[in-house]
Amino acid sequence: MKSWIESANREETDFPLNNLPYGVFSARGGAAHCGVAIGDCILDLTALEADNNLGLFDRRVFGAPAWNDFMALGPEAWKRLRIWLIGALGEDSPVQAMAETYLVDRLSATMHLPFRVAEFTDFYAGKHHATNVGTMFRGPGNALPPNWLHIPIGYNGRASSVVVSDTDFHRPWGQIKKPDAPMPEFAPTRRFDFELEIGVIVGQPSEGPVSVVRADEMIFGYVLLNDWSARDIQVWEYQPLGPFQAKASATTISPWIVTRAALEPFRVPTPAREVPLLPYLEEPGPMLHDIDLEVAFATASRAETIIARTNMRELYYSPAQLLAHHTTSGCPMRVGDLLGTGTISGAGKENRGSLLELSWGGREPLELEGGIQRSFIEDGDTITLRGMACGAGYRIGFGECRGTVLPALEYPDAGG
Amino acid sequence: MKSWIESANREETDFPLNNLPYGVFSARGGAAHCGVAIGDCILDLTALEADNNLGLFDRRVFGAPAWNDFMALGPEAWKRLRIWLIGALGEDSPVQAMAETYLVDRLSATMHLPFRVAEFTDFYAGKHHATNVGTMFRGPGNALPPNWLHIPIGYNGRASSVVVSDTDFHRPWGQIKKPDAPMPEFAPTRRFDFELEIGVIVGQPSEGPVSVVRADEMIFGYVLLNDWSARDIQVWEYQPLGPFQAKASATTISPWIVTRAALEPFRVPTPAREVPLLPYLEEPGPMLHDIDLEVAFATASRAETIIARTNMRELYYSPAQLLAHHTTSGCPMRVGDLLGTGTISGAGKENRGSLLELSWGGREPLELEGGIQRSFIEDGDTITLRGMACGAGYRIGFGECRGTVLPALEYPDAGG
Repeated sequence: MKSWIESANREETDFPLNNLPYGVFSARGGAAHCGVAIGDCILDLTALEADNNLGLFDRRVFGAPAWNDFMALGPEAWKRLRIWLIGALGEDSPVQAMAETYLVDRLSATMHLPFRVAEFTDFYAGKHHATNVGTMFRGPGNALPPNWLHIPIGYNGRASSVVVSDTDFHRPWGQIKKPDAPMPEFAPTRRFDFELEIGVIVGQPSEGPVSVVRADEMIFGYVLLNDWSARDIQVWEYQPLGPFQAKASATTISPWIVTRAALEPFRVPTPAREVPLLPYLEEPGPMLHDIDLEVAFATASRAETIIARTNMRELYYSPAQLLAHHTTSGCPMRVGDLLGTGTISGAGKENRGSLLELSWGGREPLELEGGIQRSFIEDGDTITLRGMACGAGYRIGFGECRGTVLPALEYPDAGG
Repeated sequence: MKSWIESANREETDFPLNNLPYGVFSARGGAAHCGVAIGDCILDLTALEADNNLGLFDRRVFGAPAWNDFMALGPEAWKRLRIWLIGALGEDSPVQAMAETYLVDRLSATMHLPFRVAEFTDFYAGKHHATNVGTMFRGPGNALPPNWLHIPIGYNGRASSVVVSDTDFHRPWGQIKKPDAPMPEFAPTRRFDFELEIGVIVGQPSEGPVSVVRADEMIFGYVLLNDWSARDIQVWEYQPLGPFQAKASATTISPWIVTRAALEPFRVPTPAREVPLLPYLEEPGPMLHDIDLEVAFATASRAETIIARTNMRELYYSPAQLLAHHTTSGCPMRVGDLLGTGTISGAGKENRGSLLELSWGGREPLELEGGIQRSFIEDGDTITLRGMACGAGYRIGFGECRGTVLPALEYPDAGG
């Protein structure tokens, strides 16, 4: 598909006409608006709607700087907008002159969180990751927990900690107990890590349990997600109720929501089941996507090193299965819920989606460009996640999901 | 303190002039409004403000049916409203005639959730409960996890599942694996339980870590909280990332927010520390409250039985400590965050705040009125929590936190 916007037709753009991801941006110090990425531009939907040049919906949905109101309209509206955008931005557009007046330079825009995160749930759906972590913590004989092949393990995360790419943050403090110490200490984490995940955005609410088919229909789109993790805090706090402060400093997502519609051509099945799943988890068709993923590590002074490459198809459970499982208890889902898939590692050493795995618990430090070694993240280091689904002559790119870890702040004293 | 509303001066009322708890109600099919409970009445603050009869704040804060906007104003505003209410509803009120026109019959009003729950976190701060559960699961030698006396254990819960008292709900489905079965099954829970807790409402936001002193100032008020739990689902799903669907069907709170101000006369210290706490958790003064708590159990056809009595002072960690710990990682807190304390059990058999403990894992069924036995909750059973701080000739009551468990619904098929 060709666009009249030339930069959208280049093979190396993340944002061709096939993609049309949704974000929230501000330009030249103006207010944050909803927009669609197309090549090196953003189409300003908030302004376009405010001027009555959209006319697709019976009420204003892009007035707030978040895609929630639009998501709430449901799948028929999602389709209507995508069709309109392909028509308006395609090479034979009847409204090119009008649309041109709403284009903004993407490369100079500031990106914001694309939606209000209602609640955040993080899963553990990558088998290689669960096996690696289990092997380190419990030995190869007990690597996978007994429930793992039957149930998509997940925990509730903290929505308030979700930030958009390029939001830097300070190294967290926490309780840490060294294996041989009699008491814990309170200190900034020494084993700070990233986790390469995909974030799944729930675009429709539910009241009771839903099937895998219905769950798939409820998914609005996807982002890259880095679930920053303090491993030393985690190992001390997580028994018996799971991770808490170890994963509450920040969770970074990429700014552009790649829609389910854009990824339809890239559907692939989940891996072969090793034990039969209970019927409520069975998939009627391919529910994963063939999305190449990579992690880049850059220290403050050096060029980046690609430290891992993997693919979404390595997940054992699909986003639709995760969402269906999330509703089994009757747990109500809301527009704007964010689900993390869990770390997506592949089979090989170079396919691992966290430093815990890449450095094997710190015992095998990574070699970076310039002869630098790293087992965990040091102050000033930057982690960048990238993802793309590759079609014939085009790609559906996710853009970048990036964050830099700043030094720990001084901890407040008793009065602060 | 006496009120011109006679029902507020009766010794047995939960809502004397000293209390003045905040809720959201609707009456005679009208819209939901913010109100204050006083004896058998509710003062309609939404209407009073809309008519410009309040005049305390420079913007309208009771327009939405939730206390969040008012909470966001902060502690000085909280104090200003309380002073105004005591003046307006006290026996020498200069505005009695005006206020009378905003009184609604409390006993015929319908109550709603009193605030928008931003996020919900559930802790595990009761030592008797943690010891009882640990003894059942791991034996008396390993009852308390090694971290328990050092760190307030908590996990993120699901805000969308929080409901107000008298919201009945259906028995949840979930994955259950019997100890001797080779595979899990999918079925309605057979071990459904309640948990007696206090809910702590965060009324001020934070960006970085806060001290215990500051955390205490951020607390707006308290409710009773029943963290319904499916024990058979929980025991299969909770390793390694903690409880998830077992606690996501419903969490019931009482409708009236009892303010921190009303509970000031009832402050008591936490129990003696068994090991020294890290400095960030140290309390400069008494941070618990002397609140009597009880649990009533009623089957569909019989009178209720009081099955447990305990007190908030049994908690090992105070709400301020829980909140301070919650911010250690830099986790941002928001106006409307709800923290559950965890189950509050006392030392004796009759002081246990869950059926898991009261029936000792089902091995010692409870005897209820009418010769009925129960180990866990059956369809049609109703659990009611009550709480009150007892002063000289008056009490600060919480009202009731009640829910009835309905039979499980049929599970949706693959297309549903």
